[in-house]
Amino acid sequence: MDTPVIILVSPQMGENIGAAARVMSNFGLHYLRIITPRDGWPNPKAIDMAAHGAFVLEQAKIYEYLEAGLADIQYLVATSSNMRELSKTVTNVRTGIQWASNKMSSGNRTAIMFGCERSGLSNEQLVLADAIMTIQTSPRNPSLNLAQAVAVVSYEWSQTADAPMTDDVDHRYDLSPQASKDELLQLSSHLESELERAGFFQVAEKKARMMRNINNTMIKAGLSTQEARTLHGMINALKRK
Amino acid sequence: MDTPVIILVSPQMGENIGAAARVMSNFGLHYLRIITPRDGWPNPKAIDMAAHGAFVLEQAKIYEYLEAGLADIQYLVATSSNMRELSKTVTNVRTGIQWASNKMSSGNRTAIMFGCERSGLSNEQLVLADAIMTIQTSPRNPSLNLAQAVAVVSYEWSQTADAPMTDDVDHRYDLSPQASKDELLQLSSHLESELERAGFFQVAEKKARMMRNINNTMIKAGLSTQEARTLHGMINALKRK
Repeated sequence: MDTPVIILVSPQMGENIGAAARVMSNFGLHYLRIITPRDGWPNPKAIDMAAHGAFVLEQAKIYEYLEAGLADIQYLVATSSNMRELSKTVTNVRTGIQWASNKMSSGNRTAIMFGCERSGLSNEQLVLADAIMTIQTSPRNPSLNLAQAVAVVSYEWSQTADAPMTDDVDHRYDLSPQASKDELLQLSSHLESELERAGFFQVAEKKARMMRNINNTMIKAGLSTQEARTLHGMINALKRK
Repeated sequence: MDTPVIILVSPQMGENIGAAARVMSNFGLHYLRIITPRDGWPNPKAIDMAAHGAFVLEQAKIYEYLEAGLADIQYLVATSSNMRELSKTVTNVRTGIQWASNKMSSGNRTAIMFGCERSGLSNEQLVLADAIMTIQTSPRNPSLNLAQAVAVVSYEWSQTADAPMTDDVDHRYDLSPQASKDELLQLSSHLESELERAGFFQVAEKKARMMRNINNTMIKAGLSTQEARTLHGMINALKRK
């Protein structure tokens, strides 16, 4: 098993099950277990909402009891908003998913469990979890849609697993290579001489400072060779007039 | 402005607008702008789906043109899955949101922009962004529902707000506030009209593409209000000659 199992406990609306399946597949999760879906199974509304994630629904396993759906699971994280009276490790999603990922890496069959739309997971259900994670929400509107909760968790999983933050970089899709410093200096002198001839530098003492600022603007732009060429052309066009 | 503005560009389904508003409010975001919603406004389906997040819809601002919806924005992050031919800073959501948060902290009005369900943001729209962030998805089902994309971004925002990761920062010592999109668009039209008069656009069909590249260069530079003013002056000086 390469990815955690998502377990929906007594979900009510087919639309939410479908949307959950869709977003699971968006983020590379594909094992879904559903405990006693209210409207039976299969559910056409779920299939509609799943769109290209319908394959997750086709492979989903349906159980009559939570205990059966959990039988082979070795590490279980539950999502819950309110903690009630339960002595249990509670963390945020990022850390909870990191724990799940670590447990999986060391060979444990791992699952993440979500309660029903109306009331979430009961104390009896939460008790089965190794850890509880809460998705922190605003007091003004704390209630997260089920599929949106699955979205957040699946997204966090994708961050842990295949995209370990290596993309944190300043990628640029450059069609043309970045201009060399020499090209930039040539552009700068071209601009300077035309501005000089145009009488742009009215106060001689300020010229050096102005050119420094202008150069800074060009550097900030990270101009490509092609862009530098275009700027030369623009300067020439404007001066021809 | 304490939280970023969410901008939905030409959203199609009211359900998605409503679900986006709901999840925004779940994660403490409440400024929504909608550009040309396909089915008009207000939209009863949006209100239904928003549930307790309906207050976000009530306060939402509707615009006929993207340029109007962006006018006062100083730092704009666009979400996009495919990069096409555009030279632009691209990063993942976590970093993109971190940048947005930093820009907000230093006083810039900041927005995050989402395209329509069918086709996302066009190159003409993407060009207006200071940075692009991609939500990495699985090749098996890459297409994320609009409201789910808003969920992931809003969730990441909530993570930044209470747990600011201070590394990874786009440090810039801004002496002058960053130019608003409106200031940039005015600069762009000024330049365009002068280039037009100077006969710079020799092949009419290429003009749109050239202007897009020129705008992209300006946006990449992260111009300050002062720099934009200097560029106006430079254009005027060159044309006077």
